[in-house]
Amino acid sequence: MRKFVIAGLGLIGGSMALALKGFEDFQIVGVDVSQPTLRFAREHGVGDVVTEDAAGAVEGADVVMLALHPQGILDFMEHHKNEFKPGCLVTDVCGIKSAVMAGAECLPDGVDFIGCHPMAGTEFSGVEHAFAGMFRDSHLILTPRENSTAEHVALMERLAAHIGCQDVVKTTPAEHDAILAYTSQMMHIIAVSVCDDPNLFTCKGYEGSSFRGCTRVAALDVGLWTQLFSLNAPALTKCLDTLIGNLQSYRDAIASGDRERLSEKLDYSSARKRQMNLPGPDLLG
Amino acid sequence: MRKFVIAGLGLIGGSMALALKGFEDFQIVGVDVSQPTLRFAREHGVGDVVTEDAAGAVEGADVVMLALHPQGILDFMEHHKNEFKPGCLVTDVCGIKSAVMAGAECLPDGVDFIGCHPMAGTEFSGVEHAFAGMFRDSHLILTPRENSTAEHVALMERLAAHIGCQDVVKTTPAEHDAILAYTSQMMHIIAVSVCDDPNLFTCKGYEGSSFRGCTRVAALDVGLWTQLFSLNAPALTKCLDTLIGNLQSYRDAIASGDRERLSEKLDYSSARKRQMNLPGPDLLG
Repeated sequence: MRKFVIAGLGLIGGSMALALKGFEDFQIVGVDVSQPTLRFAREHGVGDVVTEDAAGAVEGADVVMLALHPQGILDFMEHHKNEFKPGCLVTDVCGIKSAVMAGAECLPDGVDFIGCHPMAGTEFSGVEHAFAGMFRDSHLILTPRENSTAEHVALMERLAAHIGCQDVVKTTPAEHDAILAYTSQMMHIIAVSVCDDPNLFTCKGYEGSSFRGCTRVAALDVGLWTQLFSLNAPALTKCLDTLIGNLQSYRDAIASGDRERLSEKLDYSSARKRQMNLPGPDLLG
Repeated sequence: MRKFVIAGLGLIGGSMALALKGFEDFQIVGVDVSQPTLRFAREHGVGDVVTEDAAGAVEGADVVMLALHPQGILDFMEHHKNEFKPGCLVTDVCGIKSAVMAGAECLPDGVDFIGCHPMAGTEFSGVEHAFAGMFRDSHLILTPRENSTAEHVALMERLAAHIGCQDVVKTTPAEHDAILAYTSQMMHIIAVSVCDDPNLFTCKGYEGSSFRGCTRVAALDVGLWTQLFSLNAPALTKCLDTLIGNLQSYRDAIASGDRERLSEKLDYSSARKRQMNLPGPDLLG
């Protein structure tokens, strides 16, 4: 039996432990520092075994997946770098890849690292919100090292299939971070910015699914997202500048009273959206 | 048997015709100018009867619901104003209320008008996307006239219950338009502005539910939304100015590298979102 360690049984780590149940011949070992989290995990079958002993878990592990906050991932690798067995695959689930891949340079030769980012989540956090279907139909992004072994990449692809991902996308850490600034981080900045409007509380009873869809992620995990935004500040700042310019252009077209110009702009943007044609579980409603 | 006319069998009018099936002793009469729409409606039971004869439908009707674009609603009332029977209730489903209520002034004495806005919709249009469950758990906003009869208001409230709305909210046209600029119109401007980013097409495979949630409504009905935005330009412009200021403030906090300031801002905004605590069918995933 091989040993698959998940360090951090939060929303994503916990969901991964549930989703990985029965994956090949792996025993899923969950690690966390929080006693309530360990108790909940034990009582709800989150992982085959759970423990607070990270060093003991890492010892002899075939795969170690770090499901911690970005700084926690860096600290874990630095602290345990000499405890991974040769041939071990270390991976993560973090929404930022350049900083994590740079941190993984501390691992000794013979310990592989493949960056991993499952494009899934909810606005909640903690093991009590974890669920096995979290990754269904989502994308799994991988950023292998140049010298990552083919066996390890193949293992991650089988993992993606097991947890229900719709596809696996391979890219570089820099490209990942530039694109994610747009598709994920900026969505969170929009959501919190909309909630800063003084009208937020007077509008209850007047909101539809577009408002719920846009602001859902505003109830974010502050510690986590402060790190994610900060570690990707240049790319995120660039995206926000583009967005602010595009919003200003719509604002000016609306204020001008020129309906033809507004209609042309809407034609252009809505055609782009239709062309992108994103199917997904949340299309309806 | 009373007669309930729905003029316009598009996404909302068609869904209303389906949702109103069996509502008290009303016969639901659907009116449209499009032959393909009428054929589809006839074949799929959208309305008990369908016709292209608007004048004939309006004659003797107890309720006439106008499910047309804003300008279409104004034109319909002007064109048919002398065909409504005394005591008739005219209503609508439009996302803008001041302009529609002003247009309803053309109706003769004895013909009531209650503005109505069901807070529901999808990014699609046309009768083929209509479905009976469209209004389930949504808000129904009413803007009655000062002299609207209690019987008519009560009728609209029973209608809301029949089609599955979670509640009925009564307000003034001006307040409706100011709040909707924020909760609905601005969400659509955000969605199209995000899609104007040059990275839109390179990001396929990297999007999660936050991106889908935010951009879903970008594939909008251009003619409809050009009218809605234009008819509410002052309120919408004001909201967009506030949003741009809030985004700029986050952008500057991120660019400054001051993590403590960023963390404080995120604490503030996410607490507001949690306090608002919006339940809804699209909270999951």
